[in-house]
Amino acid sequence: MLSIVIIGTGNVATHLFNTFLSYDTLNVLQVVGRSEDSLAYFANKTKTSLISNTIEIADIYIIAVSDDAIAEVSEKLKNQKGLVVHTSGSVAMSILKPHQNKGIFYPLQTFTKSKLVNFRAIPICIEATQKKDLKTLYFLAETISNHVHEVSSEQRKHLHLAAVFVNNFSNYMYTLGNEICEEHKVPFHILKPLITETAEKINDITPLQAQTGPARRNDVETMQRHLDQLTTKEQKNIYKLISESIQKKYGKEL
Amino acid sequence: MLSIVIIGTGNVATHLFNTFLSYDTLNVLQVVGRSEDSLAYFANKTKTSLISNTIEIADIYIIAVSDDAIAEVSEKLKNQKGLVVHTSGSVAMSILKPHQNKGIFYPLQTFTKSKLVNFRAIPICIEATQKKDLKTLYFLAETISNHVHEVSSEQRKHLHLAAVFVNNFSNYMYTLGNEICEEHKVPFHILKPLITETAEKINDITPLQAQTGPARRNDVETMQRHLDQLTTKEQKNIYKLISESIQKKYGKEL
Repeated sequence: MLSIVIIGTGNVATHLFNTFLSYDTLNVLQVVGRSEDSLAYFANKTKTSLISNTIEIADIYIIAVSDDAIAEVSEKLKNQKGLVVHTSGSVAMSILKPHQNKGIFYPLQTFTKSKLVNFRAIPICIEATQKKDLKTLYFLAETISNHVHEVSSEQRKHLHLAAVFVNNFSNYMYTLGNEICEEHKVPFHILKPLITETAEKINDITPLQAQTGPARRNDVETMQRHLDQLTTKEQKNIYKLISESIQKKYGKEL
Repeated sequence: MLSIVIIGTGNVATHLFNTFLSYDTLNVLQVVGRSEDSLAYFANKTKTSLISNTIEIADIYIIAVSDDAIAEVSEKLKNQKGLVVHTSGSVAMSILKPHQNKGIFYPLQTFTKSKLVNFRAIPICIEATQKKDLKTLYFLAETISNHVHEVSSEQRKHLHLAAVFVNNFSNYMYTLGNEICEEHKVPFHILKPLITETAEKINDITPLQAQTGPARRNDVETMQRHLDQLTTKEQKNIYKLISESIQKKYGKEL
């Protein structure tokens, strides 16, 4: 049985907490937060504590707070003997410098409070300097997920940036599509099968092969018509820049 | 039984042809193309013909050619009595002006030759001026798909533009993510569950609600780090423009 203390009360902390609860081999001893308010959700499910109070002795301490608070929390945990990890995609492991036993436990997923997640399908990137700690992280990660990857801090930094493109930015493309539909009273849901197919396609072929559309085939007339159709400068600029980039990428073969 | 002539030999024509073949109530009499070469694929499966030769008498003629060739093909079919439709997302129905019985049969999907498609999940947008023709199009569309929508030429124009954002542009975000992974020798496939989840999420919440990431939370430091990390001007410009647009969109609540 692995004993766990979670520091943090946000999306990642909450989703991890709820997932850990469902496994007998994991025991969340305590959730640590900044305020009584933020701890209310956890209060009747496990021990809770403010960061300034006593922290339980655990096998692993998971720091799931915003990037810029990790260093401070790490410092406050400096007397704990267990393994200390954080869950951030973009912060190096070295930030946990007070700790001899340190590591990373980064679930590569987009968490929103309102949506349940199935951790089994979520890739978890782990890292540690000590063999024993890596073993602990493998155990924890493989308990909850089918996709566990050992990834260095350097690799993780790039993975996180790539994730901004494939997740944050593609979601924003959905938002712009939705905006266009709403403006012209076309039901956005008509596009949902297309969105699903676009994502699924790249399980079979690379996104480079999967590219279609006016920019891909250098259809200048359609692109001009689209630009005329768009109503905001915002939309026009984004349409232009991405189209030009696609045209350049495939330019050699045109 | 509905008799069909397909004019065109590209992706859309080929996928429609193969799908129609599997239904007893649909009979593809002929595929019409520009050259013997382009017709070779169809030659042993149905009658084929060059556009200059005799066209069969059919209930419906489906023009599945590139946008700029539709008018010319439509003109060449002017002596045919049946219903004439085209499959384009962005060309108005009025382009089929020689025909009294005209309509639209627009499958809203991204077709690549190398990937099989399941038409049942593909939305088909139909339009016609005559009630009888609309009935024919409903019959044809509902035979092959579960998602049939009656959409005007004006609506279709905007839907097609929205599709460029949700499909072409989000696929290009995958390409850029892939590029970053390749540059730094991180396996892109780690990101695939995230891509799937990003697309699925908007079945439950709007893309506006689903937005996460540094731009969404106005995390200026992370964004600057990302910009420093990116290696091409292309990547940097796209990162900047989309991030700024996200920041503006959520600016009011920050």
